[in-house]
Amino acid sequence: MVNQLKEYEYAKYLPEKSSIGGTITTEDSHVHLSFGYPNSDLFPLQALSEAASEAILSGGHLALHYFGGDGINKTKQWIKESAVHRSIEVDLDQILTTSGAQHAIDVAARTLINTGDEVWVEAPTFFGATQAFQLAGAKITSFPIDRNGLVVDEVEAALKKRKAPKFIYIMPNFHNPGGVNLSQDRREKLAKLAEQYSFYILEDDAYGELSFTTDYQPSVYSYAPSHVIYIGTFSKIIGPGVRIGWIIAKGEVLSKLNIFLQGSQTNPLTQEILAQLFTKLSFQTHLTSLIDDYRVKRDVMVEALQQTFQDHISFHIPEGGFFIWVRFKKDIDTDELAARAFRNGVSIVPGTSFYQDNRPSNEIRLCFTYCDAEQIKRGVRILADTYFSIVKSDVEEIKA
Amino acid sequence: MVNQLKEYEYAKYLPEKSSIGGTITTEDSHVHLSFGYPNSDLFPLQALSEAASEAILSGGHLALHYFGGDGINKTKQWIKESAVHRSIEVDLDQILTTSGAQHAIDVAARTLINTGDEVWVEAPTFFGATQAFQLAGAKITSFPIDRNGLVVDEVEAALKKRKAPKFIYIMPNFHNPGGVNLSQDRREKLAKLAEQYSFYILEDDAYGELSFTTDYQPSVYSYAPSHVIYIGTFSKIIGPGVRIGWIIAKGEVLSKLNIFLQGSQTNPLTQEILAQLFTKLSFQTHLTSLIDDYRVKRDVMVEALQQTFQDHISFHIPEGGFFIWVRFKKDIDTDELAARAFRNGVSIVPGTSFYQDNRPSNEIRLCFTYCDAEQIKRGVRILADTYFSIVKSDVEEIKA
Repeated sequence: MVNQLKEYEYAKYLPEKSSIGGTITTEDSHVHLSFGYPNSDLFPLQALSEAASEAILSGGHLALHYFGGDGINKTKQWIKESAVHRSIEVDLDQILTTSGAQHAIDVAARTLINTGDEVWVEAPTFFGATQAFQLAGAKITSFPIDRNGLVVDEVEAALKKRKAPKFIYIMPNFHNPGGVNLSQDRREKLAKLAEQYSFYILEDDAYGELSFTTDYQPSVYSYAPSHVIYIGTFSKIIGPGVRIGWIIAKGEVLSKLNIFLQGSQTNPLTQEILAQLFTKLSFQTHLTSLIDDYRVKRDVMVEALQQTFQDHISFHIPEGGFFIWVRFKKDIDTDELAARAFRNGVSIVPGTSFYQDNRPSNEIRLCFTYCDAEQIKRGVRILADTYFSIVKSDVEEIKA
Repeated sequence: MVNQLKEYEYAKYLPEKSSIGGTITTEDSHVHLSFGYPNSDLFPLQALSEAASEAILSGGHLALHYFGGDGINKTKQWIKESAVHRSIEVDLDQILTTSGAQHAIDVAARTLINTGDEVWVEAPTFFGATQAFQLAGAKITSFPIDRNGLVVDEVEAALKKRKAPKFIYIMPNFHNPGGVNLSQDRREKLAKLAEQYSFYILEDDAYGELSFTTDYQPSVYSYAPSHVIYIGTFSKIIGPGVRIGWIIAKGEVLSKLNIFLQGSQTNPLTQEILAQLFTKLSFQTHLTSLIDDYRVKRDVMVEALQQTFQDHISFHIPEGGFFIWVRFKKDIDTDELAARAFRNGVSIVPGTSFYQDNRPSNEIRLCFTYCDAEQIKRGVRILADTYFSIVKSDVEEIKA
């Protein structure tokens, strides 16, 4: 009598299995160059603790309700002021807070995509974004990046030949995983194309604040506000665990995003705490401490890579963000390299994770922000030993 | 040259406009019997403030990361122990925390629904749920409730005639808006039908803890664990602003829900704070204070309704939860009643909001938890005056 649901049809765009998540126990000495995380030692815990305590006592009677208290608008006010550095001028009602940038990506995807719609992305790109697009039923096409970011000429060539996508997803600053920035002329050109061919640009600026130079480039949003959905997050500058990101948009797409969100507020309690935090923490001092730490560790990783791998690799030295994207000059199976390196005590992310079309990749992503300098040096050394043992055994196989 | 995106196709299941949200400024004296909110005065602010401060200092170095700290499992441990009152025995890995019950509903909908799939709901039902189902592309069919909850015989009759739905969404305890409970025999029967006809039951137990009697009924989950997705939330017992709810599931659907969530953690910071809160707050004492307050205010509302409306209305006296669902014996346009009552200083929710098929409704939902006793009495008085002025003018129109 009892049917075991063998024939039950779940949502068809659900993947066969989860591609991220799951905990693997590692030794304490294991080096996690795979984690795209900030440095835990730089979390502003003292200020956040005081902020949380005060926010709840003074504003909790509102912040614990669905609609929230003053913290929501104060957080938006901070976002508004911060956006000016990206040449973005907005009213508070153009800012929608979300549960991190991942939720912002998901909301944008579900607002814009119908089953079978085209979404264009960079190759490589952030896997969390392509998963959200696939779950929304999108067909994904990818376009290469180079040291100046997305190759916009290739996008233009495609637009001349085929239907424009619903949107293009890009990371213009300190690209994950590429580490590169989109050049100013390409930003301007891409924005013009969006206006000309009627598509949106989903501009993911998760790493934008973490610039090791003093230059801030104008956002793509600033060139075509009606055609860009801009995404930011507190994950890299305060901590991912607060789960607050934001969308900035304008005009018709803003009203559609608002309809999708149905007036629901993202965690009012956390926003109350953040609002209080910004009265206690000198954000500029905090940001400088992050940048100083990450710049030093980028240099440590660059030097370690150059010393150990010498001319076996090439990479762009990132001027901010979290990642170095390493390309091996020899063809090497980086899934195999990652598996062997893991057994030897260092985690890395193989390049295949960042392409949605299952192409082979002789690239890997290394994060220089989460580990300390000693771990970075040790991790790169283990990685190099693993690499050379593979290359050497390949050479021996060929000889034999 | 610039195309104004006139032809841009947004996601086709997006409604034309937002049906909830949006702030309307009201006088301080305005009575919000429409808000389905807890009593702000009973938020455990002192304990929560201390919990937050300590949670961040002691566990923030992990809780501020994506993966979170001990708070996640400690929160799940609390949920596990609490579920025993619903005759639910689970391992921690059967519990998935979400951004409130609304997110849990959304996750379940997106995991189970393909475009055009059938979802069955109660009539009336919670509009936030039907919106989530519609956004996922579902076709919705509704079945009546009576004083013993969903009329399961009608569900059975439909199952004999047509294809089973992907799932049935029910609120078995202190129904929103109906205020009724699903009887034990109907729980058992519905669970059997789910097994027999291979559908899931989405069991939304948002109000289950708030029972004014000592009886706890077994959850529907307890009768058919493999065919039920159980949903709970801290919104009604701690505060909606913490935005933490949960899913309990088992077997194949649990693994599919896990795939959908892709290993992503719901706000680790808030869960760390909740975990710390439960070491500081006697939850049973806190819950008793909520129940005592809400029982008194239910009685105040019941008495006010009986005194002012007398035999013009009928309603079930709820034994817990937040709501009284009032039915007018005369046919009356409750949208018009709500609009006039609003101008007179009291907000209510017209019954039409709780039906997804645009049927007329001579019912309204009143919440007795958010306002104090004086406001409830005043609000009901204003509402009655508004009602009788409509009825009287109708009578005069007929006479004239």
